[in-house]
Amino acid sequence: MAKTNPGRFFEDYAVGETIGHAVPRTIGAGERALYHALYPARHAIYSSDAFAQACGLRASPMDDLAAFHTVFGKTVPDISLNALANLGYAEGRWLRPVWPGDTLRSSSEVIGLKQNSNGKSGVVWVRTTGTNQHGEAVLEYVRWVMVRKREQGSAAPEPVIPDLKPALEAGDLMVPEGLDFSGYDFELAGEPHRWGDYEPGETIDHVDGVTIEEAEHMMATRLWQNTAKVHFDASARPDGRRLIYGGHVISMARALSFNGLANAQMIVGLNAGAHANPCFAGDTVRAWSEVLDKAETDVPGIGALRLRLVATKGGAPGALRGGDGKYLADVLLDLDYWALVPI
Amino acid sequence: MAKTNPGRFFEDYAVGETIGHAVPRTIGAGERALYHALYPARHAIYSSDAFAQACGLRASPMDDLAAFHTVFGKTVPDISLNALANLGYAEGRWLRPVWPGDTLRSSSEVIGLKQNSNGKSGVVWVRTTGTNQHGEAVLEYVRWVMVRKREQGSAAPEPVIPDLKPALEAGDLMVPEGLDFSGYDFELAGEPHRWGDYEPGETIDHVDGVTIEEAEHMMATRLWQNTAKVHFDASARPDGRRLIYGGHVISMARALSFNGLANAQMIVGLNAGAHANPCFAGDTVRAWSEVLDKAETDVPGIGALRLRLVATKGGAPGALRGGDGKYLADVLLDLDYWALVPI
Amino acid sequence: MAKTNPGRFFEDYAVGETIGHAVPRTIGAGERALYHALYPARHAIYSSDAFAQACGLRASPMDDLAAFHTVFGKTVPDISLNALANLGYAEGRWLRPVWPGDTLRSSSEVIGLKQNSNGKSGVVWVRTTGTNQHGEAVLEYVRWVMVRKREQGSAAPEPVIPDLKPALEAGDLMVPEGLDFSGYDFELAGEPHRWGDYEPGETIDHVDGVTIEEAEHMMATRLWQNTAKVHFDASARPDGRRLIYGGHVISMARALSFNGLANAQMIVGLNAGAHANPCFAGDTVRAWSEVLDKAETDVPGIGALRLRLVATKGGAPGALRGGDGKYLADVLLDLDYWALVPI
Repeated sequence: MAKTNPGRFFEDYAVGETIGHAVPRTIGAGERALYHALYPARHAIYSSDAFAQACGLRASPMDDLAAFHTVFGKTVPDISLNALANLGYAEGRWLRPVWPGDTLRSSSEVIGLKQNSNGKSGVVWVRTTGTNQHGEAVLEYVRWVMVRKREQGSAAPEPVIPDLKPALEAGDLMVPEGLDFSGYDFELAGEPHRWGDYEPGETIDHVDGVTIEEAEHMMATRLWQNTAKVHFDASARPDGRRLIYGGHVISMARALSFNGLANAQMIVGLNAGAHANPCFAGDTVRAWSEVLDKAETDVPGIGALRLRLVATKGGAPGALRGGDGKYLADVLLDLDYWALVPI
Repeated sequence: MAKTNPGRFFEDYAVGETIGHAVPRTIGAGERALYHALYPARHAIYSSDAFAQACGLRASPMDDLAAFHTVFGKTVPDISLNALANLGYAEGRWLRPVWPGDTLRSSSEVIGLKQNSNGKSGVVWVRTTGTNQHGEAVLEYVRWVMVRKREQGSAAPEPVIPDLKPALEAGDLMVPEGLDFSGYDFELAGEPHRWGDYEPGETIDHVDGVTIEEAEHMMATRLWQNTAKVHFDASARPDGRRLIYGGHVISMARALSFNGLANAQMIVGLNAGAHANPCFAGDTVRAWSEVLDKAETDVPGIGALRLRLVATKGGAPGALRGGDGKYLADVLLDLDYWALVPI
Repeated sequence: MAKTNPGRFFEDYAVGETIGHAVPRTIGAGERALYHALYPARHAIYSSDAFAQACGLRASPMDDLAAFHTVFGKTVPDISLNALANLGYAEGRWLRPVWPGDTLRSSSEVIGLKQNSNGKSGVVWVRTTGTNQHGEAVLEYVRWVMVRKREQGSAAPEPVIPDLKPALEAGDLMVPEGLDFSGYDFELAGEPHRWGDYEPGETIDHVDGVTIEEAEHMMATRLWQNTAKVHFDASARPDGRRLIYGGHVISMARALSFNGLANAQMIVGLNAGAHANPCFAGDTVRAWSEVLDKAETDVPGIGALRLRLVATKGGAPGALRGGDGKYLADVLLDLDYWALVPI
């Protein structure tokens, strides 16, 4: 048993340390097909090489969230195997497209540590970077998790709490090289709405729902080599239910958001995210979005929308928190991201 | 909510109008693998590049039904989002193979309209064409659906009922360029039966059965970007059951038909089709075929069989309709198609 | 019905006969993605082109077990359609990697026959060879099955029982051309353990478990074009349960064994295998391994470990047989194989 990975405990992290995560992964045509089989994904740049080429890209890149899940999945054995909770995300930036055939690897720098007052656990902040086979960074994001301590009595580290932006600014967003919406075909993309048609404060009900199956969320989660046992082993939780990987809910909600946000083509920034309540097989996932902000990018014709994407298993579009400020019980996900939209 | 697609109602169609459907789609190696994972598909031309090349093709094309589902899926948001029933198919022709890496798009011409006598709905006939990234038509077919009216009192259009062939003739069928069965390897293909071994009137029991799972039919249906909510959302129907996309039953039955029709390699014509009864997860799908007709093509060595493919969830092979002329309750699908077979 | 395959009965086999199996199959990027979606596979050579290239290979090959299942699947219609039991494996050798895009076919030579004393069935031994599109053998193995007789009274053949090795020797193992572990990156591979760190007698608990779903095992089994009806048709067995293809359990257990055997990169030999008890959906599969032997290969830096891989649905690691010598009821699989490991 000494040969298996017990995961790290809170004591095993040191601020400034960089952890190289194992098992690089080549993703391509097969993962793209599976992404479309697992989610009702229809954003045209990820669906069609011809459409992507008409937008100045050399081919249809891997879905931004497929890249995210792949990079994230590699971190699980080192960061969250003994995690009690996935607390938040910040400063997520997609730095360049991931092309079919690219090989991704991940590393994480520990940027913060704070022991909890109960002495049993602590919060670990890491900045994770995904790189391709050329050594180019494709994605980076900060995540913080609550991790068990190995021993309650062990000494607490000096607390370091990183200074994180509440949201990226437009200048932080990277527009993929060559992206050009000047000949953008709105009919082919599926909707006529341009960047100028969206206003902060606007709420969009994405209407459709998908009832979640065990086989699907497990296939998705394995595809990203995420090994957290609660997703796969029905005996891991006292209630005998498998907890659905939060990323499955993110991808499902994003795909559903096509209906109303078909032209919010590419995700380029992740400002924040909360997995508000657990999701289980049998839940019917719906989604709504709120336009939080809008900005121009440094590329003519390409605007950015800051969107709140909320996944629910019930409740009305727009309903997020109760009078106590807590998420409503039907809210599964509250994600704050930036996407590129033709102006 | 104004930004989401409410679908078209009967009043929104005009004869002669052409509707360009959204979201082009590149399909390839991943979709081929998924097709083989979702259906027990074994027709050798679609299973093996080497076999396809020995038949004069440059590679194994995408399964004819994968091409059909992809083209069909794009039409759903414009044609059948508010449909009450999918009534029929006619004059379906596969015009050239779809190769891995091709990008497909669809458009539909409205060729018929007839309001129902109840004033609440009407029938819409469309001729849908799928084209590849070179602008070449790969597939065309006529479909008619019953669509809700937006308002019961709105004026009825002049009825136009298209004149459709009850079945394609041999001269209508397109043999893929280069296809050559002169060196056809029957052992590798799996059965010794040639075109000459089949006779009209013959019934073939395909023996095997597959019990349908929710995860599988949803993955299939999403793969073709078919968005009809009854397939995904357990809360969409009063009975809480998800209706299985008719195309899933078509592909399942066609794949099962390998056992007895292993050499009916390529589908080139769709004469008619009826989804006789709904299919739900838990049903065990079986299939039988009846040879309806046979014809030579204009290519030596390549014959065509006209086949009735019936999918059932019970009942004896050959049993199709009751004394009242209606489909028996266990019949799921009655499909009439032409396939190419070595002579 | 005369056109469908009734399968072979015991009387239909003759020692020395070679059976060419139908339906060649091209496997590639799609099958690789599905393999990673269906199993928690993480061995780096199969996960990453870049890692494989750093180990001297031209790309990431298809998983050894994907090759095995593909070759095996083709044999089912000719060997095991009327089989009562799959009795064993021996002398399995992976002869060269299967690359994405390769087309595989299978043939089997009958090497043994022995009628059972009850006169109703007999044992058939076959040596199956998988070849690629260049006619090169990629895999060979011996399998024996118990097959029904067509008629109880028919004459028994002269018994021929092949002389099979209880285990391959190191000299029998083929190291893939070019494989070179001299620059092997243990951090990227996921674990630090070298060949020298494993000792015969050592038992490794692979810790993690996966609860099996119907949709997943059927997708896997279809992917390899294995047509045995008990895996797909809930009405095929009196208890209404679908029996899970033994190969699904093999792949699941092998993937789970990453945790402790991350560097047992490539399977090159199959010494023996028993499907000890049936597996059904809902079972939670776990795995443990025992190091049976170790050997050097003729390539410097590449060692071989002989491993017993046991899949269970319960019970303690190391528990295999009861006092009566029979497999414990929770044991699903007992597989004896050789894998290549960096020295």
